[in-house]
Parts: sequence; C-alpha cells; structure tokens
Amino acid sequence: MTTREVPPVAEMPTLDPDVDVAALRALLDGRHREVRDLVRANLAEHAQILEDAEVLDRAAYRERVRDVVVTMAATGQTGMGFPEAYGGGGDIGASIAAFETLAYGDLSVLVKVGVQFGLFGGAILQLGTKHHHDALLADLVAGRTMGCFAMTESGHGSNVQALGTVASYDAAAQEFVITTPDDASRKDYIGNAAAHGEVAVVFAQLEVGHGDQGEQVERHGVHAFVVPIREDGRVLDGVRVEDDGPKMGLNGVDNGRLWFDGVRVPRTALLNQFAEVTPEGRYLSPIDNPNKRFFTMLGTLVQGRVCVGGAGINAAKVALAIAVRYADRRRQFEASATGEEQVLLDYGVHQRRLLPLLARTYALHLAQEVVAGQLHEVFSANGDEPDDEQARRMLESRAAGTKALGTWHATRTIQECREACGGAGYLSENRFAALKADTDVFTTFEGDNHVLLQLVAKGLLTDYAGEFEEMDQLGMARFVAGLAVDTVVERTAVHKLVQSVRDLLPGGDSWDQEAGLLDPNYQLAMLRFREEHMIAGVARRLKRGIDQGDDPGAVFSRVQDHVIAAARAHTERLVLEAFVAKVAAVSDPDLEATLRLLCDLHALSTIEADRAWFMEHGRLSSTRSKAISREVNALCRRVRPLAVDLVDAFGVPDEVLRSPDLLGWTDAGPVR
Amino acid sequence: MTTREVPPVAEMPTLDPDVDVAALRALLDGRHREVRDLVRANLAEHAQILEDAEVLDRAAYRERVRDVVVTMAATGQTGMGFPEAYGGGGDIGASIAAFETLAYGDLSVLVKVGVQFGLFGGAILQLGTKHHHDALLADLVAGRTMGCFAMTESGHGSNVQALGTVASYDAAAQEFVITTPDDASRKDYIGNAAAHGEVAVVFAQLEVGHGDQGEQVERHGVHAFVVPIREDGRVLDGVRVEDDGPKMGLNGVDNGRLWFDGVRVPRTALLNQFAEVTPEGRYLSPIDNPNKRFFTMLGTLVQGRVCVGGAGINAAKVALAIAVRYADRRRQFEASATGEEQVLLDYGVHQRRLLPLLARTYALHLAQEVVAGQLHEVFSANGDEPDDEQARRMLESRAAGTKALGTWHATRTIQECREACGGAGYLSENRFAALKADTDVFTTFEGDNHVLLQLVAKGLLTDYAGEFEEMDQLGMARFVAGLAVDTVVERTAVHKLVQSVRDLLPGGDSWDQEAGLLDPNYQLAMLRFREEHMIAGVARRLKRGIDQGDDPGAVFSRVQDHVIAAARAHTERLVLEAFVAKVAAVSDPDLEATLRLLCDLHALSTIEADRAWFMEHGRLSSTRSKAISREVNALCRRVRPLAVDLVDAFGVPDEVLRSPDLLGWTDAGPVR
Repeated sequence: MTTREVPPVAEMPTLDPDVDVAALRALLDGRHREVRDLVRANLAEHAQILEDAEVLDRAAYRERVRDVVVTMAATGQTGMGFPEAYGGGGDIGASIAAFETLAYGDLSVLVKVGVQFGLFGGAILQLGTKHHHDALLADLVAGRTMGCFAMTESGHGSNVQALGTVASYDAAAQEFVITTPDDASRKDYIGNAAAHGEVAVVFAQLEVGHGDQGEQVERHGVHAFVVPIREDGRVLDGVRVEDDGPKMGLNGVDNGRLWFDGVRVPRTALLNQFAEVTPEGRYLSPIDNPNKRFFTMLGTLVQGRVCVGGAGINAAKVALAIAVRYADRRRQFEASATGEEQVLLDYGVHQRRLLPLLARTYALHLAQEVVAGQLHEVFSANGDEPDDEQARRMLESRAAGTKALGTWHATRTIQECREACGGAGYLSENRFAALKADTDVFTTFEGDNHVLLQLVAKGLLTDYAGEFEEMDQLGMARFVAGLAVDTVVERTAVHKLVQSVRDLLPGGDSWDQEAGLLDPNYQLAMLRFREEHMIAGVARRLKRGIDQGDDPGAVFSRVQDHVIAAARAHTERLVLEAFVAKVAAVSDPDLEATLRLLCDLHALSTIEADRAWFMEHGRLSSTRSKAISREVNALCRRVRPLAVDLVDAFGVPDEVLRSPDLLGWTDAGPVR
Repeated sequence: MTTREVPPVAEMPTLDPDVDVAALRALLDGRHREVRDLVRANLAEHAQILEDAEVLDRAAYRERVRDVVVTMAATGQTGMGFPEAYGGGGDIGASIAAFETLAYGDLSVLVKVGVQFGLFGGAILQLGTKHHHDALLADLVAGRTMGCFAMTESGHGSNVQALGTVASYDAAAQEFVITTPDDASRKDYIGNAAAHGEVAVVFAQLEVGHGDQGEQVERHGVHAFVVPIREDGRVLDGVRVEDDGPKMGLNGVDNGRLWFDGVRVPRTALLNQFAEVTPEGRYLSPIDNPNKRFFTMLGTLVQGRVCVGGAGINAAKVALAIAVRYADRRRQFEASATGEEQVLLDYGVHQRRLLPLLARTYALHLAQEVVAGQLHEVFSANGDEPDDEQARRMLESRAAGTKALGTWHATRTIQECREACGGAGYLSENRFAALKADTDVFTTFEGDNHVLLQLVAKGLLTDYAGEFEEMDQLGMARFVAGLAVDTVVERTAVHKLVQSVRDLLPGGDSWDQEAGLLDPNYQLAMLRFREEHMIAGVARRLKRGIDQGDDPGAVFSRVQDHVIAAARAHTERLVLEAFVAKVAAVSDPDLEATLRLLCDLHALSTIEADRAWFMEHGRLSSTRSKAISREVNALCRRVRPLAVDLVDAFGVPDEVLRSPDLLGWTDAGPVR
C-alpha cells in the first residue's frame, strides 16, 4: 500500500446553490408527477387515519383501513397497473409511483393496497388468462372482491419451491383438491386472510394422476390456484382460518393463517398463463424446464419487490422531513459566543447523523426511478420476444438489490431520525412510532434481504457462466455443487478487469491515488473496482472449495458473507451510476449543483463506510482515507444550509407529517 | 504502514469447552444470585402481563402495570436499595441486580419501577434529609404513595441547568411558590404524572428574596422540591396535567406533562441535603461553587443510568435467547449433500449476525457488573470522606459510557434478532415487537447517549487538566473557550503514552504487528492505543481552534465527532478490561475456556469494526486486518456449538420467552 501524500482536498467553492424547491420536487416526481399529486391529495384527505390508528382497537382499525383503501380505489389511484378494459389505468410505471407515494401515509393502508392490488391482483393478471381476468379483475380493481396471496407457509419462508400444500387433480371430477398436509404447510402471514379476503390465490404443489387406477402420480411443482375462502363474511367449508394476532406494526392489515382440508375447485381455477392441465389430466406447459417455469412464474411478481423498495425509501423521507426540520429549529445548550443556544443542525455530529442519510435517500430515489422505469418497459412490452428474458433477469436482480438496500435504509434512517428527535421522537403523534413499527418487516417480506442479495449474486455469477440455468431461490449450495466454477471465472468480464486494473481506473493503476475526490469518475471507479474484485473473489473461493472436495454446504457457509457483500457492492455501484447519470442530465445550473453536492456526499460517505476494505485491497492509502472523512465533513457543512429545502422537495403533505411540537405547528401549519 | 506478512492465524484447538450451563449462570448472576432468582420467580408468576399488554387498552394496561409493581414491591424486590428502617433491603448492589433482571419481562413494569423507586424514591433518599425520609420513604417503598421525578422540560431536554420552572421563596409565608413561566418550561415525559402520581419531586430554579421590599432577587440555580400534585385521584389546584398520549412503547407507564401555577409548598419541601433556605430567606449550602453543587445533586442520580444500561443489556439477552434457539432448530433450504435443509445457525452469515452480538452481550454484562459494584461501593460508603469525590466522578463517567454502549447494543441486537427470525419475528407473541418498541427510548432517556459520551470525554480531558472545574452538562463549548488546553496536553498521561508507544505496546513499537491475535495483551494494547491517541487528538484540535481565534461553537462543532469517538473508545477499553480480568479470575478450566472464546470474539470483532481507524493510524497492516476478519469467522464457528448453552446461561425464565412457534414449545415447555 502506498502512503504518499495526496493533494489537499479540493478548494471549497465559495458559492453554494440556491435550491428551487418546486423545480427539485418536479425532478424527483419525474414523469408520474400527476399520479403522485393525486396520491398526495388522497393522503391529505384521509390523514385522520394516522390518529385513528392509535386509538381504534385492532378490529376497528382493520375496518377503517379497508374503507380508506376502497375509497382510494374509487379515485383510480390503486388500479393504475391494470388494463383499462377492467377499470384500470393501463400504466405500470404510474402504479409504482402511486404505491411509493402512498408510503407517506398510514402504512397499513399501503400494505393492504399492496396485498389487494399488487399481490392478489398481480397474480390474477400475470399468472391468469382471459377467463380469470373476466371473472375477477373488474371487481378486484374496484375493491369489491378482496383477495389473498397465499404463498408463504410457516415451515417454508424463503424456500417457496419446497412448500407443502398440495393440489391434486381429480380427472373424474375435473377438479383440483387442495390440501394442507401438516401444520408446517399452513399458509401464514397472509394479508386479507383473517377478515376480508373472499378469494385466495393459493400456491401449491401440483400433482396429476391419482393412484386410483394404479397410474403414477406426476409432480409438476408449485402452481397457483384461485380458491374461494369466504362468502358474505363466512369462512367456507374445508377452509380453516386463524388470525395471526397482534403484530409489531401494520395492525390495520388482517394477516392470518389458512389450512385447506380437501377443498375442491374446478380445473379452470389453475392460473394457466404458464401451464395447463387438460380435462383428462395431461399436463402441458410451454416451458419445459420445471425450474425455469417456476422462476418465470415468480418473476412476474417482481413488481412487489420494486414496490416495497420504493415504499421503504419514501418512508425514510417522512422521517427525514421531520428530523431535519426539527433540527433546524430546536436549540440546545449555549455554544456560541452570544450565549444563544445553537440549533441542533449546526452541531457537527447532528449533521453527520442526518445529512449522509439525506443524500443517500436522494441516491436511492433515483436508483428506484431506474428500476421502476425498467419494470415498466419489460412489463409493457410484448412478453413473447426472445430477448425479453435477459431484460427480465436483469430487472429481477436489480429489483432484488434495490429492495434490500432501500428497506435497510428505511430501518436505519427512521431509527436515526427517531433518536435525533430525543424523547419527543418517542411520542406517537410524532410519526416515528408507526414508521418504525410498520416498516420493520419490509426487510424480511417480499423476500428476506439476505436471500435477495444471494439471488443477485447468483445472477452475477451465472451471467458470466454464459448459461441460463435456474436454481432454487437461494440455491447457492446446489450451485456450488453443480457448476463448473472455473468456467465462470474464465468468462467473466470481472476477471479480465481485475487482471487489468487500467480498464477500471481511467488514468492507470495509481490514478486513483491522486484523482480528485469529487471527480465522479473516481467515485465510480472505486465502486466498480470493489464490485469486480468481490465477485471474482467469490468465484475463486467457491472453486477452491469444490476442488478440495469440501462439503458444498460448508463451502457455501464459509463464502456466504462474501457472496452477500459482492451483491451489495454490485447494487451500490448501480445506485451511484444512476445518481451520476441524473446529475449529468440536468441542465439547470442550480439544480445540477444541488444534486452534485448530494451525489458527492453520497458517494464519499459510501466509500468512507467501507474504507477498511479499500485500504485492505490497496486502493486507498491511510492518508487518502482520512482525507475522504474530512471531505465528508466538509460536504455535510455545505449541505446543511440546504437541508430544509431538500426535505421540502420530497413533497410530503403537511397533513401527514403531524408532529405538532417537533415542527412547531401553528394554526397556519408547520413553521417554515 | 508496514505490510509484512504476519504469522498464520493460530492453530485452532481441537478441543472446545463443554459448557456447564448452571456454573456459567452462577458466574453471570454473581453475588446477587438470590435476588435475581427472586425476580425471575416474580416474572414467571406475572408472565401473563406480556400477553395482556397486547389486548388491554392503554388505561387498563396502566392499571395492570401498577398492580404488578405494587405486588412485586410486597416481595421486597423493588426496595432493595432503601434503608431497612423504611422497609428497604439496605443493599444498593442488590437493587441494581433486581432492576436489571426485571428487564427480562414487561418493560413498562420495569420503567414504572424505575420511576417510582429509582427516580422518585432515589431523589427523596439522596437529595432529602430525615424529615423527608420519615414522611415519605416507607409509603413509597411499599408502593402506597406513587411519585414523579419532574426534571425534564419540553424546551430543555439534556440541558437541565437551563430549565425554566421557578421556585421563589416567600419569606413572609415561609413557602416556596412553584411556577411554570411558559410552555417550553412545562415538565414533559414525566412517568406517573398522567394517572398515578400523588407527589412530584420538581426541579426548579430557586429564587430567594422577592422584589416586594425592594431587595435583590438571588438566583441559586436548580433545586428539587416535594410538591403534592394529586389527592384521591384528583389533580390539586394550581397543577395542570396533560397526558403525553400514545407512545412508541412503554404504554403501561403513564407519562404526562405538568404545569404549576403559583403552587405553594412549605419551606421544608426543599430537598435539603445539599442546600437550605432559612425561614428568613437566607440561602446556605456546604458547596460554594454553584456548578459543583448542581453536579453533586445530579450525581446522586447516577444510579438511574447504571440501571438503564443494565436493563438494555438484559433486554438484549431476551432477544438473543429467542433468536439463537430459533436459529438452532429452524431449517431452511437444502444445503448439505444429504438433501436435508441446514439449520440457520450453520450458515456463516447467520453466525456472523448473531454470535459477535452474543459475545458482546457477555462483555457488557461483565462491564456492567463492575459499574454496579463501584456504585455499591461509593453509595454504601460514608459520603463525607474527601477522596470520595474522585471515586464519584469516575463512577459517573463509567456509568455514562456503559449506559450509552449498553443501550445502543440493545437497539442493535434486538433489531438484528428480529430480522434473523424473519416474518415470525414480527408477530407480537414472539416478544420482539414489545422489546423493540419499549427499549427504543433507552438510548435517549436518563441522558441522551451522545450527550453522555460528551460527559465522558469532558471527564477524560479535565482529569488530565488536574483541576476540578465543573461545567454545564454538555459544556464542551465553554470548556473550549475557558480552559488552557496546552495545560491539558502537557499533563496528560495520554500525551506521554502517545509520545512513547512502547509503554502501551509491551513488545516495542512494531510488536503489535506480530503479536498473536488471541493474545489479550495485544487486544488490550490496541484498544488502549486507540483511546489515548483519540483523546490527545481531541485536545490538540481544541487548542488549535482556540489559538486560531475561532468561534468556540464552531470549534466544538468540528471536533464533536472526534470527542464522541474518544469517549466511546475509552468505554470500549473499560469493557474489554473487565472481560479480560474476569477470564483471568476464573479457575474452572471449561468455564475459563468458554469465557476466553467469547472474550476473543468480542475483542477481535471490536477491533475489526474499527479496523479502518487502526489502518489509518499505522497500527494494522492490510494483511493483518484481513487476518483478523478470518479469525472472527473462525471464532464464530467455534462458538456456534456452544451458542444455545450460552443463551440458556442467561437464565431468562421460559414463561417470559413466549415465542411458541419460534421455540417449538410443547406442553412441557420449549424444546431444548
């Protein structure tokens, strides 16, 4: 490692930008500005629910949430992603924007919307065909028919391919028989199950050919079926429902458990977009490989992950809007010569606590915009084109990574903002209580974040292997056992790049020791180097383990943290690229300067957070590492005067901010 | 920085210890084992309250908590720290042990006990004299008289010296008149205020000598007064109470706001341990310096901080007990050659997530034992001895640091454990909901953690200055302005040590590049070096700022993160020293080996977490830094087979663990 002196940190520009809040907000809102404003108006109108959530009992709160959801549905807000023929808006991008923005308000409403229109509605739309669409879409889009997405089982959280519910085809009756074989296979945590759901999309192992006439039972893996569970509020025969009981948060959503005891549904209950069972019991699918078929089915549900990631990022905005504005007016201790107490945000540590999180929120918002755009492209295009597959896989990987980073960011940011508001942050009227409790599950639902990052890593490795071979969702262990890892390493762009650092570092191997810290090429090169180095390292370690004949499980266990770190590094690079690209695309000088400041703060605090790794891998001298920390401090001081404008640009409606004491509300609204 | 090769990581011993759970538990329980077992029995008996907390409305939950507190009081559990003459146990150490252990159960009960017996009772005991003791102690120890500790005001969170409530002495009536001059000075977040408190200890600015006869008003700073606020459930005239409303957690505690409108109390209402007002209105105090007097008064309340730190550590144990035992039985994905799913705790990342936190919990428990022991010594000794002052100040610093580290550890550990239990961790019956919500305020109450660490840093710097000069609680800015910092630097042990690294590194300046990673001398030397280097750096930066004539507020703002890092480094060193000392004192070989393994894991993961700093400051080569990460992984694998025994040794009663699905309860209790 070199320890030569680096040039001093770049001179601080004397003029920092003026923030045009309206212009910045328009930039963040992007092309779905109108939809976002519709949601903002709906949130303001129903803001009372935030207070009701604190005083209603659980049953009443659930009813209240349902009412708000149905009322919002009537404005078109929740149906943006469905075909216009069924009362939808026919615009997937708009549906993501609407959902994200909904995260400014009560999050039980958000999740109920996600369950009803995203998961249940999405499954009917994506996995079903015209028969199912005609029967169900119009009613579900209007909120007249409430439904469940019954995938997760108590015994099988992330390992969906191993779930235990069985749907066996009875050819004589032309019916499927749905059965829960044991308690580990009960459906669990299912939204809308405990109270409101009338229909469930049930994921079950499809079996064809009963032993009755001595023929072989064929097992075709997990498929989805439409199963009525309730009529006029009464649970149907053969179905058992249990309430999941009180939860940490989201108590306005009626999560429950479902058991099926030989429930019969017609042959047409199979959502048959990707597979079909003929009346006689022949199984047909356009996708031969069962693994590939399974992941194609799951892949249609990528929208849920994109939505949750966006919701996490927007929930973090609410927390920051409160904490930053509080810190800009709360005085604490005498610290200046005049004897007046300083406002909190003038303290260095307070800036350090809040402002890098604010910059990262901008970064993730813009990265999310890219994912949402890609989702819109992929799902609006004709799904039969052959090159779609590659785009879908890239989207799935990007959605998984962004969801993990966005939801962890939410947990961390809300926590930091709560603490930064002291004891007042603990009172429910100040929003943090519900924000914390409600978002906490975001890191583990719609895919546990660690499992999702393993999915990302798998994609990175298999991409390079040049062959499309689907595996079980986590699947790294089988992957370790089954794949010729040397092929992976040989073919990787990664490998080549690590061999020849010059390709990554525009100015040669030692360029990064002297490049300007505020040069986006430098920042990007650092994140690219880390990513490529980590992926190549994972591949080498996997190969070595196999070559040594070690137990695949043990090999995977040893490499797992490296696998997850590589996926995280990959996603961090994508996030920064999205931010840098946005800065480059802005023409207004003040807006560009504002975003650039935030981009620098985000990039350098990201590098700083992992500076140990960069030092360990020869890309950062100790002197330069310290210079980065100083530069982050300097950037915090420059962002500080803009901070209130930067959170105002999120456009969180005053009505949902609440926090009367923290924000110093008067009759005219919060003090600005 | 040197990058020479270090020797390979020490050979892994082939024999890892067997854990004798009972012996380990006895070691952790320490000398107050009986008290802890009494609390465990009480918790088991009242375990139903954990479920009641989920279903009762707020008012009913508050009553339930009050009842449990009073019932527990009757067993002697909550009065351990009071003199036997008033129905107490006369053993301060025992009272800390009892309080800590209570954190295994419902935390509203814990906090209500803290308010009633720790804060209210503690103030009467420590700040009052025989008159107050005779009048109040017996009733409050029995829970017959409930009381408030009315210090915090809405406008003055951590800055107690600036609070606004006024107590002016009316010599004619021989009464104090208590007044809330404005809304910023209302008492806020006061436990027992909203419903149950009959008496409040009110902190107010003492004013003597009214302008009536033209004499000067003397202001003597903050003092404490006994003020009745309620009788037979009715709020008394002149007192206004407002409920703080729903909170993130601890909703079984009736926090509220208090305003006083010229409330008159007799002259004897002043808690006069440290100051007195004569009937004619002369102010007398054995402590001349008003700052010193104020901090002497506050110092008597150090017990609250020790208690909260211990409670945080014990709440973390509950989370770990659930998450580790769940991870030891939950299978997920096929990863082994046999096709059977691996249990979660066999995954490398899962070990990394939980086991360093487990080791750190042991470390903090043992550090807490030292603080609690010192508290017992200081408060059981005769307080009039002159050298007591030094011991008290060391205790206050240590209590502040340990409280900060212990409560942050609780927040982090409970969060990680929740996520490690996936969706199931989100259900209230699995404890994490309440654990998270209830402990969240620990980081900001009884002193905001950041403010507490500044207090620690102040102590470190003033110690070296060799003069005892009290400052306002945060006070760093004034300190910067008023102190001759060069004196500080000259006199520091620090300075000397940094000048001569050999004193810190037993084998010379480069010894630490080759010492065994598992050598406790090496581990301690690393933490000592960091601490000393940071403190000296802070002193130098403060001096430079003053020499340059910068605004003190700006200087402090720039150095603040460094100040806090130094205090944290100091406390981390104390924690590791406590752990190493304990290992050395254990004679049983298995027990010693077990603790040593945990101590190594704690020490190396602590160094690893800040390895960037060590690299930046020339104490760690990149090669050695990577070796430390590998060693942490290896230690995790060695701790893994012991993990369930290690959490069982915490002795959390099965009845309060709940978590039927996570732990696989049968009729005979949780599966072991």
